[in-house]
Amino acid sequence: MFDYSLTATEGAARAGTFSTPHGDVPTPAFMPVGTAGTVKGLIMEEVEDLGAQMVLANTYHLYLRPGHDLVRRLGGLHAFMRWDGPILTDSGGYQVFSLADIRRVYDEGVEFQSHIDGSKHEFTPESVMEIQRTLGADVIMAFDECPPGGCDRTTAEAANRRTLAWLRRCRTRFDRIGQERSVPQQALFPVLQGNVYDDLRVAHVRQFTDLRDWPGYGIGGLSVGEAKEGMWRILELLDDALPADRPRYLMGVGYPDDLLEAVARGCDLFDCVAPTRNARHGTVWTSEEGQVNLKAARFREDTRPIDPGCDCYTCTRYDRAYLRHLVVSSEWLSVRLLSIHNLRFLVRLGEEARRRIGEGTFHGWHRDWLNRYSNERSLV
Amino acid sequence: MFDYSLTATEGAARAGTFSTPHGDVPTPAFMPVGTAGTVKGLIMEEVEDLGAQMVLANTYHLYLRPGHDLVRRLGGLHAFMRWDGPILTDSGGYQVFSLADIRRVYDEGVEFQSHIDGSKHEFTPESVMEIQRTLGADVIMAFDECPPGGCDRTTAEAANRRTLAWLRRCRTRFDRIGQERSVPQQALFPVLQGNVYDDLRVAHVRQFTDLRDWPGYGIGGLSVGEAKEGMWRILELLDDALPADRPRYLMGVGYPDDLLEAVARGCDLFDCVAPTRNARHGTVWTSEEGQVNLKAARFREDTRPIDPGCDCYTCTRYDRAYLRHLVVSSEWLSVRLLSIHNLRFLVRLGEEARRRIGEGTFHGWHRDWLNRYSNERSLV
Repeated sequence: MFDYSLTATEGAARAGTFSTPHGDVPTPAFMPVGTAGTVKGLIMEEVEDLGAQMVLANTYHLYLRPGHDLVRRLGGLHAFMRWDGPILTDSGGYQVFSLADIRRVYDEGVEFQSHIDGSKHEFTPESVMEIQRTLGADVIMAFDECPPGGCDRTTAEAANRRTLAWLRRCRTRFDRIGQERSVPQQALFPVLQGNVYDDLRVAHVRQFTDLRDWPGYGIGGLSVGEAKEGMWRILELLDDALPADRPRYLMGVGYPDDLLEAVARGCDLFDCVAPTRNARHGTVWTSEEGQVNLKAARFREDTRPIDPGCDCYTCTRYDRAYLRHLVVSSEWLSVRLLSIHNLRFLVRLGEEARRRIGEGTFHGWHRDWLNRYSNERSLV
Repeated sequence: MFDYSLTATEGAARAGTFSTPHGDVPTPAFMPVGTAGTVKGLIMEEVEDLGAQMVLANTYHLYLRPGHDLVRRLGGLHAFMRWDGPILTDSGGYQVFSLADIRRVYDEGVEFQSHIDGSKHEFTPESVMEIQRTLGADVIMAFDECPPGGCDRTTAEAANRRTLAWLRRCRTRFDRIGQERSVPQQALFPVLQGNVYDDLRVAHVRQFTDLRDWPGYGIGGLSVGEAKEGMWRILELLDDALPADRPRYLMGVGYPDDLLEAVARGCDLFDCVAPTRNARHGTVWTSEEGQVNLKAARFREDTRPIDPGCDCYTCTRYDRAYLRHLVVSSEWLSVRLLSIHNLRFLVRLGEEARRRIGEGTFHGWHRDWLNRYSNERSLV
């Protein structure tokens, strides 16, 4: 279980298969985000139809509402979400730092107030393991401290130390729960921090691999405001430092171009709320015109699909003129149809990258793709 | 075309078939409302799956956005909405009176300001025929004046006179457009007014039938705030007064119990935004427990479907506990799934009524159904 086997590589880019108790995940793979146990507005048949193999759910949200114990009593996260494929839950750390009111961060954990009702809560490495063990996702994430992008070296160092200490405690509690209770088979991924400080990044990898042969690695603390060049350099460093036979999950990425750049640098798994969040604002991705907003008047009578090359439900049935009408009229159907397209766009990008890596044609293709995408975008 | 044939009757209750250029509509039938060219949040395959035979769209909304001429250039309303079955457009009158800022109502028509951007517009019987002829629905409605429920007799009389005068002008323009331009085959239904004044109601029917043998009749000015007894009495009067071989469309009704009471009094077609509006508030209909709101704490761990007897997508796949979680978390998927259930609930009620009328078992069944539904509702 939780094996990762490489099926092909081309430079740093990797095609592989990640095995989980709920099925195999061909990588590179984008994972749609099902924050509160639902991929916003979609039924799980739709998520399956768009080719997603694995989905993500948020520990922070499910802990607050409806509560992890209730999810367990209702049959666990897979039954609750109506998703029989692989699921990953995050540690809740990122949400605590970005959504909640932080009361106190200390070595024990984090005290915070719910963004829903202001109630007080504490996350510790131990409680986060209890919650994720109870929810029952296939892959669960260690509790980490993610300092802001662009933080100074001292802050980054302190966060690295705390994240390492918390990882030890996560490991202990994770194992103990597995021995004491009947719980589903789960993989615990640590989360690498270190901002854009090369030596901190490399040290974190070494410290982590000294602790255990982890089944996979979360790459945190990127795409949080730092310059893109810093992210690419760190990914190149990590590609060398990380074991090749373990999946690398680049957390919170991405936009289509970022995802492809990261695939080129050896990342395998991705998640981001951009596809659904952009859909709520009428923004869609196209391979020939980059990122466009359907509110633009030029789409008023445009009878082409969003992306003529796309095979998604939306593109095979609807034209831009109708979709623009839905967006401009603030109709919910627009969010649903645009989410389907944007999600399929990223899933398909992963599929295409995988195919290209298998054929050995990834590098020329990905460069062309990025040039076309970003050139066109700048024209819009 | 636009024939209506009765297939069975039981007392005043009628089962029939209404033929349109886009297919037959078995009656009694509830028509989902697709305000701006979309049944809120649903794709048309879902509307079809829930058994709807005919849908409604709002002239007022489509006129303002995206505009009837654009709808025509994009292939007409059927192509625009992706609905190849029968469509009915209302006259826009009700929306002008309820949504827009009225500037002036006079014999020529109504001046109003858009609820979207405050822009000034005028609806006249002639312009409303132009708009609906251009949109291209199967059934279009005459422009009427609907006075508030509980208005005095003088107001009701004046509205009746104006509605009759406008109907003459609608007829003239409707016919002229049919002679001058190539337009789809359409049926024009007049809208009966008269509030709860028996003699005004009967007079309106006579005045209308003197004008033409209409292919069907809209019953307006009911369910607008008057006491229910008044509505039932008027429907009984109209059942006697209206030609038996023409469909009767009770506009804006309804809730499940009202729909069934109206079927018992000879009405055939219905529309209402209640199924989708209630879904937005977490409210659903059940045959055993009446109307319930899923926010209630008692549904927290309720693993039954909304309505165990329901065959809809939502009830065959989701339990109350998960749906409650979606509602409480303000997730869009709740609106979608609850809309599907509520719409199916009304469509199924029409189907069941039709079957019962065919068997001659409608009256006992409908009385039992209403007792169970309203008793249970009062307990909630």
